[in-house]
Amino acid sequence: MKVGVIGGGQLARMMIPEAIALGIDLKVFAESEGMSAEKSTTVVGDYTNAEQLGWFADGVDVITFDHEHVPITTLQQVEKSGTSVQPPSEALQFAQNKLLMRTRLSEAGLPMPEWEEIKTPDQLGRFISSHGGRVIVKTPIGGYDGKGVRVISDANEVEDWFANIDKLGGSLLAEQLVEFVSEIAVLSARRPSGEWRAWPAVETVQLNGVCSQVIAPAPNVNQRQALEIAERIAAELQVTGVMAVEMFQTRDGELLINELAMRPHNSGHFTIDGSITSQFEQHLRAVLDLPLGLTDLTSEVSVMVNLLGTEKGTDFLENFADTMYRFPEAKIHTYGKSPRAGRKMGHITMVGDDLETVRSRALLAAAVISGS
Amino acid sequence: MKVGVIGGGQLARMMIPEAIALGIDLKVFAESEGMSAEKSTTVVGDYTNAEQLGWFADGVDVITFDHEHVPITTLQQVEKSGTSVQPPSEALQFAQNKLLMRTRLSEAGLPMPEWEEIKTPDQLGRFISSHGGRVIVKTPIGGYDGKGVRVISDANEVEDWFANIDKLGGSLLAEQLVEFVSEIAVLSARRPSGEWRAWPAVETVQLNGVCSQVIAPAPNVNQRQALEIAERIAAELQVTGVMAVEMFQTRDGELLINELAMRPHNSGHFTIDGSITSQFEQHLRAVLDLPLGLTDLTSEVSVMVNLLGTEKGTDFLENFADTMYRFPEAKIHTYGKSPRAGRKMGHITMVGDDLETVRSRALLAAAVISGS
Repeated sequence: MKVGVIGGGQLARMMIPEAIALGIDLKVFAESEGMSAEKSTTVVGDYTNAEQLGWFADGVDVITFDHEHVPITTLQQVEKSGTSVQPPSEALQFAQNKLLMRTRLSEAGLPMPEWEEIKTPDQLGRFISSHGGRVIVKTPIGGYDGKGVRVISDANEVEDWFANIDKLGGSLLAEQLVEFVSEIAVLSARRPSGEWRAWPAVETVQLNGVCSQVIAPAPNVNQRQALEIAERIAAELQVTGVMAVEMFQTRDGELLINELAMRPHNSGHFTIDGSITSQFEQHLRAVLDLPLGLTDLTSEVSVMVNLLGTEKGTDFLENFADTMYRFPEAKIHTYGKSPRAGRKMGHITMVGDDLETVRSRALLAAAVISGS
Repeated sequence: MKVGVIGGGQLARMMIPEAIALGIDLKVFAESEGMSAEKSTTVVGDYTNAEQLGWFADGVDVITFDHEHVPITTLQQVEKSGTSVQPPSEALQFAQNKLLMRTRLSEAGLPMPEWEEIKTPDQLGRFISSHGGRVIVKTPIGGYDGKGVRVISDANEVEDWFANIDKLGGSLLAEQLVEFVSEIAVLSARRPSGEWRAWPAVETVQLNGVCSQVIAPAPNVNQRQALEIAERIAAELQVTGVMAVEMFQTRDGELLINELAMRPHNSGHFTIDGSITSQFEQHLRAVLDLPLGLTDLTSEVSVMVNLLGTEKGTDFLENFADTMYRFPEAKIHTYGKSPRAGRKMGHITMVGDDLETVRSRALLAAAVISGS
């Protein structure tokens, strides 16, 4: 069994242990030398180049992804050559293009914030006026971790995007600013033959647009409702592999779909230490169309805290001994990246019975390892 | 942090995922090409050659082991050059040489079967007569998985060993055949600065001298007594890294030390899926003198079943889909070896609340994946 992963970041890196356990040969197509996943068999290339991807695809059973940036037209060329791509371009386009996603999920009647495709500043001005004077504007393609997303109260604030609107696909996406009480994510996996399994919905805590903490399971959410939304999306869009559905929960318990990712996701890192089957193992099983593993949690509660690069460029390894001494229960995961402020360098997961204990210790451990 | 592992088998292989998570650079010194641990940075060489080991040791922070076959004199040369070897030769000699181990542990007053150093067939004959007519004879060095161990009732049955006794170190080891009700193993880890942690004692089930099943925790054993024996051995022998102490439990609950291994051990594979800290992570932490992780079990019970190569050379991958479909809770681990009858090809672990359910399903899953 050979799986080719496009992208050499931490998601590809965390597939390596699972591939080793299952005897899967993992090949990584990385953007550059020395990336997180370099412990696997790695080739370096340009993922927008269909010819290079064709060479990479030769001899693997399936191509899958560490990121969502491969152009759909490039993927279609790879698919035409007969290689299995999971998720297929037909599904992946909805994760790449937020406008397509909103359109498609609206047709399916799924719950979302109010939104509108925006072509001109005037149109955006009207959307702002009719939505409380403050809205979210997104570039349909290319945003992640808060990039390509702005909260604005005047169309001028995305003037640079309008100036380059052709490069951005000709439109922007405006969305109602949802007053939420919590952010929820549902991780699930679906395989080509249709089997679908989800982990319990989790609560995510964002800081400056970047995921900072994940609490599993989410303490206050209608689990059945959250999972039903994810299952409908997976089936409607014929998604394969792991998918993350990020949602807002409003004061009255309504769930509104925010973003989709069709790959393992930061909100599912806790599954490595907190579930029978990790999202990385499940993704490999799903894209190979192997039966999915149990998604039961192994503890009452798991808390994951991201380790972000600090301003002073802390080398987390220096604080390993201290952290391990004070937190023998901490599961430390590093991504092998050189430190840069705000960069996702690793994460810590803790499991246990009592949310407040686990959460406060996980946060403290993250502070100690970050030298703060 | 760079760790060099001598030996490229499944134990080195299972250190790779933990090394990736902790950002440890793992270098493997393998016996040949294409071994289980080849997914790591691997050099191939002769582990009895001190010069080659010296090159390998250059640039790593510590040397440790996947097996116990490196000659002590070779290791002493490596140590003299200033490289940290964990466990050090001073400790490792007791895992390599069963006669030294029996002598040393007898001096320490630890509980063992009756034993005697044997130089001649006559002496062996007398030991047999005075121990019920049936005893165990071992070659002091080089035995594993039932090799170098015979149950005999006549000195003639080891005539070939007497003929080569000089090559075997000049002596054999005779031991009382213990009537045991169960076999127990205690896995623990100790780091150079003295910290020691153990997992709960497990029960091991052997088939033809090879470990077949492990049940964690052992259902009927005095845990405190078992762990105290392991702790005393670790401290007396100044062991570092993971150590397995295999013991017999007699009808009246007495524990008698059978074998020692100073490395991760088959009886501890369940820790990957059944404990907060796996034996492979703990071994890396211990040999680097980093604080040890919690050894709490994450489930009431774990059962590990070895997957042995079949007579017909079954490729377990062929039965993956069936096994995963019927046993979505099974954790499958493969070692990347070509099939050979009786060879340890992988293992399956299951965790749960009820021993009999978990055990019967784990055994059934192992049968399905083995195509039997």
